[in-house]
Amino acid sequence: MSAQVAAGDRRALARAITLVESARPDHREDALALIAALKSSGKQALRIGLSGTPGVGKSTFIEGFGMHLIAQGLRVAVLAVDPSSTRSGGSILGDKTRMDLLSREKDAFIRPSPSQSHLGGVARRTREAVTLCEAAGFDVVLIETVGVGQSETMVAEMSDLFILLLAPAGGDELQGVKRGIMEIADLILVNKADGDLKAAATRTQADYAGALRLLRKRAQDPDGFPKARIVSALTGLGLEEAWADMQDLAGWRKDHGHWDRRRAAQAVHWFEEAVRMGLLARLTSDPETARAMEALSQQVSDGAVSPDVAAAQLLDTLR
Amino acid sequence: MSAQVAAGDRRALARAITLVESARPDHREDALALIAALKSSGKQALRIGLSGTPGVGKSTFIEGFGMHLIAQGLRVAVLAVDPSSTRSGGSILGDKTRMDLLSREKDAFIRPSPSQSHLGGVARRTREAVTLCEAAGFDVVLIETVGVGQSETMVAEMSDLFILLLAPAGGDELQGVKRGIMEIADLILVNKADGDLKAAATRTQADYAGALRLLRKRAQDPDGFPKARIVSALTGLGLEEAWADMQDLAGWRKDHGHWDRRRAAQAVHWFEEAVRMGLLARLTSDPETARAMEALSQQVSDGAVSPDVAAAQLLDTLR
Repeated sequence: MSAQVAAGDRRALARAITLVESARPDHREDALALIAALKSSGKQALRIGLSGTPGVGKSTFIEGFGMHLIAQGLRVAVLAVDPSSTRSGGSILGDKTRMDLLSREKDAFIRPSPSQSHLGGVARRTREAVTLCEAAGFDVVLIETVGVGQSETMVAEMSDLFILLLAPAGGDELQGVKRGIMEIADLILVNKADGDLKAAATRTQADYAGALRLLRKRAQDPDGFPKARIVSALTGLGLEEAWADMQDLAGWRKDHGHWDRRRAAQAVHWFEEAVRMGLLARLTSDPETARAMEALSQQVSDGAVSPDVAAAQLLDTLR
Repeated sequence: MSAQVAAGDRRALARAITLVESARPDHREDALALIAALKSSGKQALRIGLSGTPGVGKSTFIEGFGMHLIAQGLRVAVLAVDPSSTRSGGSILGDKTRMDLLSREKDAFIRPSPSQSHLGGVARRTREAVTLCEAAGFDVVLIETVGVGQSETMVAEMSDLFILLLAPAGGDELQGVKRGIMEIADLILVNKADGDLKAAATRTQADYAGALRLLRKRAQDPDGFPKARIVSALTGLGLEEAWADMQDLAGWRKDHGHWDRRRAAQAVHWFEEAVRMGLLARLTSDPETARAMEALSQQVSDGAVSPDVAAAQLLDTLR
């Protein structure tokens, strides 16, 4: 499968992602072997994290922006991350339907969120899917998430750039965006800057530009970043400029060593996270440990032993 | 130390809490032995979680409410949980100063938040401190937290009742309280219902009472709960009624088996959490594992191996 993925075969890529999404131990082994085999390609895509709450026009933006990139000869992969999703098989149709034009392009690849409820599992699968898309020669990998809970931080931790998409709003809605998200955003795009909403979009953009100026300058940013800009997925307004911003920022970070350092730090973060997750998984996957947990749980539940004394006993058996 | 704690000696209790707050392995062993020795007392306090953002008058409320309980011959312990706190030694003075009357009562015990930044560590220490206060014969243990991040969920997970303290506000501020907090609150108290603010407090109380009615009825509640009520820590208005509510709710839950079931489920939760924390702690505390982590981290950072392949290698060595 590795040769086909490396050759950019989209059906092989889809099968490879299905493989990394599987929790079966034999699939897991195959997935790790595949990733190790593809590791040597050394291809790097621009990984763009994109967040926005429902209603900001995220799908329309991705479609418009994706078509803009394809028109310039680039290949674009879109991965959706939605830990709150309980969608199952129908989601593929859903995601492709909402990006109708893009999904018909041979240079586009759209993959919906795996139907997992566990954020840790979603993180690993998405990260591995990014690696596969990169090995398949995609130039840009868009990782889309809804603005819910910790999924934004997780997506930022696997992206080279992080973009926050907003809708035009009254000035007092500024506080609705969590400070933490402002701090990880490289580019804020106020969408729907067309027709009646253009004036409101421009005001919102000015508000956010002001708010961004109040944040401490980050070492990994050239002058002028993070930046807020208006766009219209409908008319195409600002898409070219937004793409130029992304290229400028990526280029500057590459030139100044921030790109490589960030990717290295992200890799170490995910290594440590994978170790932690794997270690915790043994508590349930190892039958003997699971039995010991169960027996001690019962004693704790009965009040026969305190939680911490029981935990110390269990940990002793795991030495 | 265990006999003195069980006799209700406040200085012994303070020393015992200092012991459970220590991370030193020998202290940890002594702490577990102490908790195991006190376990058999079987005394149960009413554990009340109390949350409120800065400015709602939390200290004044605790002082007024605590004095009300003491006047009825009850012994009251107050534990503060503030994971965001960077306070050190000075905090003891701070906490006692802000509850000036209560801190002078022989039937009161006030303990500030340990100066730990790690929420997991704060959880274990607070939970163990609750157990110690209970063994020392306190009738009511108030666990106070600021409304920040996950500390409210954590405190609710170690309380029999959870109280949300609010300040009077305009009707549109209802949304400022996260839905998750509304769902764990047993009693919402709108403080500062005195003087000019009384009308606003009454409106706020009505708003929250309405919002609470929209929530699904919970099995562990009698009719009329969760409830919203106005109080004034300044004039004492509503304190007696609030205490009657708490006793009603606690009594009903005891009669219907919910009290014991909740305590059992909480104990199991903390047992599992303590196992997870203890397991993860070994990644850094065991020198050989820490060295292997370090070496693989470097390879991951250099891009020589993918995060997941490296994690699988490390986990293999931990079998």
